Amino acid sequence: MQKLIQGIHEFQRSIFRPQRELFEKLASGQSPDTLFITCSDSRINPNLITQTAPGELFIIRNAGNIIPPHSPHVGGEAATIEYAVAVLKVKDIIICGHTHCGAMKAVVDPKGLEELPRVAAWLAHTEATRQIIREHYQHLEGHARITATVQENVLVQLEHLRTHPLVASRLAGGTLRLHGWVYKIETGEVFAFDPEQRQFVPVTEARLPAPPTPVSHFQSI
Amino acid sequence: MQKLIQGIHEFQRSIFRPQRELFEKLASGQSPDTLFITCSDSRINPNLITQTAPGELFIIRNAGNIIPPHSPHVGGEAATIEYAVAVLKVKDIIICGHTHCGAMKAVVDPKGLEELPRVAAWLAHTEATRQIIREHYQHLEGHARITATVQENVLVQLEHLRTHPLVASRLAGGTLRLHGWVYKIETGEVFAFDPEQRQFVPVTEARLPAPPTPVSHFQSI
Amino acid sequence: MQKLIQGIHEFQRSIFRPQRELFEKLASGQSPDTLFITCSDSRINPNLITQTAPGELFIIRNAGNIIPPHSPHVGGEAATIEYAVAVLKVKDIIICGHTHCGAMKAVVDPKGLEELPRVAAWLAHTEATRQIIREHYQHLEGHARITATVQENVLVQLEHLRTHPLVASRLAGGTLRLHGWVYKIETGEVFAFDPEQRQFVPVTEARLPAPPTPVSHFQSI
Amino acid sequence: MQKLIQGIHEFQRSIFRPQRELFEKLASGQSPDTLFITCSDSRINPNLITQTAPGELFIIRNAGNIIPPHSPHVGGEAATIEYAVAVLKVKDIIICGHTHCGAMKAVVDPKGLEELPRVAAWLAHTEATRQIIREHYQHLEGHARITATVQENVLVQLEHLRTHPLVASRLAGGTLRLHGWVYKIETGEVFAFDPEQRQFVPVTEARLPAPPTPVSHFQSI
Repeated sequence: MQKLIQGIHEFQRSIFRPQRELFEKLASGQSPDTLFITCSDSRINPNLITQTAPGELFIIRNAGNIIPPHSPHVGGEAATIEYAVAVLKVKDIIICGHTHCGAMKAVVDPKGLEELPRVAAWLAHTEATRQIIREHYQHLEGHARITATVQENVLVQLEHLRTHPLVASRLAGGTLRLHGWVYKIETGEVFAFDPEQRQFVPVTEARLPAPPTPVSHFQSI
Repeated sequence: MQKLIQGIHEFQRSIFRPQRELFEKLASGQSPDTLFITCSDSRINPNLITQTAPGELFIIRNAGNIIPPHSPHVGGEAATIEYAVAVLKVKDIIICGHTHCGAMKAVVDPKGLEELPRVAAWLAHTEATRQIIREHYQHLEGHARITATVQENVLVQLEHLRTHPLVASRLAGGTLRLHGWVYKIETGEVFAFDPEQRQFVPVTEARLPAPPTPVSHFQSI
Repeated sequence: MQKLIQGIHEFQRSIFRPQRELFEKLASGQSPDTLFITCSDSRINPNLITQTAPGELFIIRNAGNIIPPHSPHVGGEAATIEYAVAVLKVKDIIICGHTHCGAMKAVVDPKGLEELPRVAAWLAHTEATRQIIREHYQHLEGHARITATVQENVLVQLEHLRTHPLVASRLAGGTLRLHGWVYKIETGEVFAFDPEQRQFVPVTEARLPAPPTPVSHFQSI
Repeated sequence: MQKLIQGIHEFQRSIFRPQRELFEKLASGQSPDTLFITCSDSRINPNLITQTAPGELFIIRNAGNIIPPHSPHVGGEAATIEYAVAVLKVKDIIICGHTHCGAMKAVVDPKGLEELPRVAAWLAHTEATRQIIREHYQHLEGHARITATVQENVLVQLEHLRTHPLVASRLAGGTLRLHGWVYKIETGEVFAFDPEQRQFVPVTEARLPAPPTPVSHFQSI
């Protein structure tokens, strides 16, 4: 704790003062373009890995970067997504998983979860991930199996995200893009899901989702 | 979006490589001492303001740094708290609000919320905050009223946190401490609630909660 | 049943008539100073043990003297607390557990609960109590373990009580005090939690909570 | 508060000591025959008006002596009823309303309820009472209208009680009886609903519900 308080002192001296103008300007409001959803894991710092400054990323963090599908029961994720889309009008939403994720290890191997009833209840929202791993990744073991779980879970949570009313509507209107990322702790690399290759590839090589052009699904018949 | 991808490139070159050893070591596991709960607001970077490195802060972020009280319905907050306390055995939990908080502005002035049904439902967990402001802060207006709301809400959410079973148990056992903080965007200062003075004071001047010494409440009667 | 009807007859003859004036006056309204929350157990009569007359104690009784934390789902406890605080403006709230409590025995030893699904669901609100007993009272057995459960549960339910908006607001304003009591059936003694000693002590020896002096938490920052 | 503590002292001296044997015996367990459900109102003391001793009445108290119908969401009332019927095997359940009931006044005249959102939500369980009063008691005003509401509400809550699974089953088996009572504060009288006369009559004149003889509804067809 004492270390954090010293850190605050250091922040004020060496970070805040030289950039005082930026911080003062931020007091008048935020207008981030991106909602970044990631795990609570202490090894991830979204601003560090994207080299972004205060004001650029609106952030949701919970164990496992999980987004429950739309439901009448509203939790923190649904409310925060609504705020990001309706009020801040973000243009991109990234769900970013990461290697060595404790929550994903529990998806692969649920022993120990009986002692963690609330974690177990929360992981009910990864049931599709679990099913995919069980049916399609029997051949993988150990680290590879966990990494497959991390990747598939990002895609499962993106599907959940699509069920949120405002997200669905902005996707239909072409004013929002969704991105699935995985951060590799041991190499500092970020991989993005490329919808055409249907694979996670280095983020610099991934095609972005189609440019947002409003397309009506409606066909007069 | 392109800016983020360039940022990742820059991160790998100038941050990851010089600290490769730290990151490689982190791949083997995390053992943060602190759970840091704060708002999704883009202007806050917990690691920046405490000058902490990857691996040091386990982080929950949602709109308004809200923690619903313990309930049979488990959300991301309850699950992530359980993971932090039971698995990571964090020693400190900080709830950190901030000035100019959009969620707290909506607590003070709920007009516009009818268009944001999920934000409105989520703010039901700030009902105590709203009541306190209504009953005790009628004399404050504008910025001061919002800042009072930010401060009182941190204290209300700390009360909610105490109802979570593992938090209650570790507090009873003297192995966990709770802290209420407010980050002032425009000056970079952090204020902590001092339980003795019953006021928010500069974090460097706040007394820490009593050192965690296990005291049994049980008295043979 | 016949005994109750004879009792009513006896009540009218020997209790009501001599105190007719009190009862007639009560018809015009109630203004109790205290909300007394206790178990449904037939062995407890709050008015008897405090020697109070009709009009003095507003009373909530349910199995286990349990108060669910504030939640959007409103039950009898939340509504009755709101009425007591907002309309009657009670100055003190007592949560009073008791030795030999059947609900607390079920917290310690849940066998049999599978036949009582609603009792089991209700005891979800004692999850923190259960956790504290599991982590800190492994050394106690039998009667002592149950008594520790009774005591810890009173403290857990007091934490739940603090999350109710009007309770939170009146505590912030210094116009309400909370008390944790345990009634010992076999000796007629009442023990109160003394916040300074962090122990239950005979009620006559317990320090009362700090006199309610309104202190604003707000600090202009 | 000081008065209560002196009362406890007085209780120990003048009540407990002369009856020490009763209290010591009660420590070994309770076996009440009756579940008594009444309002939280401070002017009611169920043991006083029925002249019963500790151990005789198992008691539920909330604002308005309201019992929500059976539902998947379990509250204190449902759990406590289950405990009374399944574990204590009570033979009689009494719902006892009372004249000058604040909750019933709010049913008749809901102005002021917008300031009491939780009381208002709780009174949703008196919607049938409200409807009956609106449709059938337009000719009554003032005190008479409120007393009609008190009486009709007791009958409405008895219907709710019948929806609880164990109550329904024990009624079908003829091992449980339900009673509707109204306590008149200003005269000390108790009125009971007589199912044959379909009126509230002095409790000493009311016919008890048919003696519990098990009757099967099943007819071989």
